[in-house]
Amino acid sequence: MNSRPSEFSIIKKYFAPFASQGAFEFRDDAAEIIPNEGKSLVITQDAIAEGIHFFSDDPPELIAKKALRVNLSDLAAKGATPKYISLALGLGKTWNEQWVAEFANGLKEDCEAYDIQLTGGDTFGTGAGFVISITALGEVPHDAYVSRLNAKAGDTLFVTGEIGDAALGLLAHERQISGLKNVDNAYLINRYLLPQPRVKAAEIIREFASASMDISDGLIGDLEKLCQASEVGAALKFQNIPFSQATQNAISLESNLSEIALTGGDDYEILFTVAEDKLIKFEDLISGSKIQFTHIGTITIGQGVKVFDRDGQLIEFEKSSYDHSGDSS
Amino acid sequence: MNSRPSEFSIIKKYFAPFASQGAFEFRDDAAEIIPNEGKSLVITQDAIAEGIHFFSDDPPELIAKKALRVNLSDLAAKGATPKYISLALGLGKTWNEQWVAEFANGLKEDCEAYDIQLTGGDTFGTGAGFVISITALGEVPHDAYVSRLNAKAGDTLFVTGEIGDAALGLLAHERQISGLKNVDNAYLINRYLLPQPRVKAAEIIREFASASMDISDGLIGDLEKLCQASEVGAALKFQNIPFSQATQNAISLESNLSEIALTGGDDYEILFTVAEDKLIKFEDLISGSKIQFTHIGTITIGQGVKVFDRDGQLIEFEKSSYDHSGDSS
Repeated sequence: MNSRPSEFSIIKKYFAPFASQGAFEFRDDAAEIIPNEGKSLVITQDAIAEGIHFFSDDPPELIAKKALRVNLSDLAAKGATPKYISLALGLGKTWNEQWVAEFANGLKEDCEAYDIQLTGGDTFGTGAGFVISITALGEVPHDAYVSRLNAKAGDTLFVTGEIGDAALGLLAHERQISGLKNVDNAYLINRYLLPQPRVKAAEIIREFASASMDISDGLIGDLEKLCQASEVGAALKFQNIPFSQATQNAISLESNLSEIALTGGDDYEILFTVAEDKLIKFEDLISGSKIQFTHIGTITIGQGVKVFDRDGQLIEFEKSSYDHSGDSS
Repeated sequence: MNSRPSEFSIIKKYFAPFASQGAFEFRDDAAEIIPNEGKSLVITQDAIAEGIHFFSDDPPELIAKKALRVNLSDLAAKGATPKYISLALGLGKTWNEQWVAEFANGLKEDCEAYDIQLTGGDTFGTGAGFVISITALGEVPHDAYVSRLNAKAGDTLFVTGEIGDAALGLLAHERQISGLKNVDNAYLINRYLLPQPRVKAAEIIREFASASMDISDGLIGDLEKLCQASEVGAALKFQNIPFSQATQNAISLESNLSEIALTGGDDYEILFTVAEDKLIKFEDLISGSKIQFTHIGTITIGQGVKVFDRDGQLIEFEKSSYDHSGDSS
């Protein structure tokens, strides 16, 4: 059996080197956060579990980055700039020091890349699989928080980036999509393993969005949630939905993959609405932006999400979203 | 098989009724916290796992309260008043709606009792045992945060409450302590199942303590951590350590239980030091306090914790603290 150092020595060795200023190199029970004047804190907590959100043999660096990035995606959708994280690291039965070292290294790289401070947390054994729960705190100016509750009929719907890669990446990770080129396969799997949260879009979101959320459970299902929360409906144009070349190639091989692309999970793109009075200025801005923003539809009165094809015909889906609760029962 | 509603409907039904003001009844991805002027936030995160920190058949209400209270204990030790919590609820394989309803009810009762707002969090399946990770945020005035790093030789050591009940309660929960009266048995088990964090001591701690931490892994081991962090030593008087009547009765039946009482886990009392210049005022104050504070020893130069018996002889322990990492390997 591998050597298993104590919880205390692990924390000291691997996590203390990137402790936040207020965290006393994790030699204390807690950490102090001194809020900046005029700023609110935005808090979110997402957890990922072995066998549900990641595979047992995924590289620990990538598991750490995924655990962090799913939270950064939530913050970005609220218009918040990430500042602090707290980590509960539930070590699975199979843990060893190497696993912890690689996990800590992945987390450290991302904390540096996104300029985030680790305030502390907890390390414990689960007796079964690994469970990682990160709580993230971001900052927004007072009154700039963007909820998903204020979409109005007539608002225009946008998404960042491209949709469906991660859902097809999960499929590709489980079984090759038959006929798909290796380069496309690798692209999709990477999009599944390593989300790219739209942290740089946060400022634009807080300036222009009337409602916003991140897409973690599939575009259609998450748009339904936004519509329910705002008490509106939505009309999407299928041909406007942005797909990567790899996803387009996969769909051209198996046409039913388009449904999976729209209803599968793990996009970690931002879905948001822009009100009419801000639309011209917003479209001006995004034409010169490095971030891809795509106009995919419109908010309507009523309820529910309708997807229309090129000919204006309604497209029906079997299942609108991906359920991460881990029950196939 | 029991009916298993979706994650979304569970959150709505059981947790949304006690969402914080900034949490939009959990219909949003995150919550907004508007900090109070002149206050810092104190963040801590402790997780508990089935089979490690609680038993599979413990009542869900008590599991919820324990998951919360271990965090409140950390906040109290830092001098912080609890304000917000975020919950990651990892549902074990055996979950059903009844379990969630009872868990939510326990959490709601405690949020009301301690005046805490639930900002949100995450619900997910673990595929194995239950894992509950709570992140708690408390408030202290700027510059009032109490770390465990500033104990100085000559400071006086105090603890709140009584030591060892929970460690003996865990023993009693696993096997009756032979000869122990039912009433003592029940008292100890309850102290194990339901920690009583010293939230009301927070104000006193921030006014008087030079260093402070909560006792979660045993008095001796945690005092060693405080001493390491402050680069000092400590001398404890065994006869001063406060034991409940039930613990005294247990020790009188099996004398080796005194070691377990001092080195076992889950006390959730506060261990703190008071500098000489504040000692007289502090002792005045506690003589009229409803909270029990006991003078148990002194901070010394050097390092390590020494425990002395009535005759001034050194007492040796086999193991100084309880390791929650769940490995007996």
